Amino acid sequence: MPVDPSPEVCARYHHAVELIGRRWSGAVLRTILDGNHRFAEIRATIPGLSDTMLAQRLRELEAEEIVERRVLATTPVRVEYHLTRKGCALEDALKAVADWAEEWLDVADYPAAATG
Amino acid sequence: MPVDPSPEVCARYHHAVELIGRRWSGAVLRTILDGNHRFAEIRATIPGLSDTMLAQRLRELEAEEIVERRVLATTPVRVEYHLTRKGCALEDALKAVADWAEEWLDVADYPAAATG
Repeated sequence: MPVDPSPEVCARYHHAVELIGRRWSGAVLRTILDGNHRFAEIRATIPGLSDTMLAQRLRELEAEEIVERRVLATTPVRVEYHLTRKGCALEDALKAVADWAEEWLDVADYPAAATG
Repeated sequence: MPVDPSPEVCARYHHAVELIGRRWSGAVLRTILDGNHRFAEIRATIPGLSDTMLAQRLRELEAEEIVERRVLATTPVRVEYHLTRKGCALEDALKAVADWAEEWLDVADYPAAATG
């Protein structure tokens, strides 16, 4: 194993890994990456996620400039959540986590995951 | 963005991302990857982490078969924590998170991270 030149675990890394790992955040990011942009669509793809919790997570991800909230001037007004460039740049990391999960976690232990 | 063939965010991915993102877990995994194997070494690389919390996180990571506890028959007995094959396989994902953090998070916001 390489020895890290820093004596301390990098604080930016520490923040990043806990940010995507916060309860529901990783799932919210992935479903937006997968093309779900409306509040109800996002919620529908994540079993067990409440409206309140989704709203809170989206606000946090907006504050981190990972997600942006777009209000489209339609009638009625339509609100969508999109990833910013910073958010899109997380795709490789989230994909790597998904690849690990697919290889190493037993699908039988996570029955909602039959297809992935 | 590609559309996920699954209507639900994969439960295995969801478990994995929250596992590595649980408070301190990502930092513990990274410092072990970096070559720190003894309890006191691991704790010393992570500012703010208590003995109790480190012990709890190590137990959880052992239960997930990501970390193994080795007791070496020295005098006095020496205990080390190593990554299993499953744990080592996380390296790419953790590296991808670290790369993202380095590119997108401002070092000024995370001052302990001067070198990483």
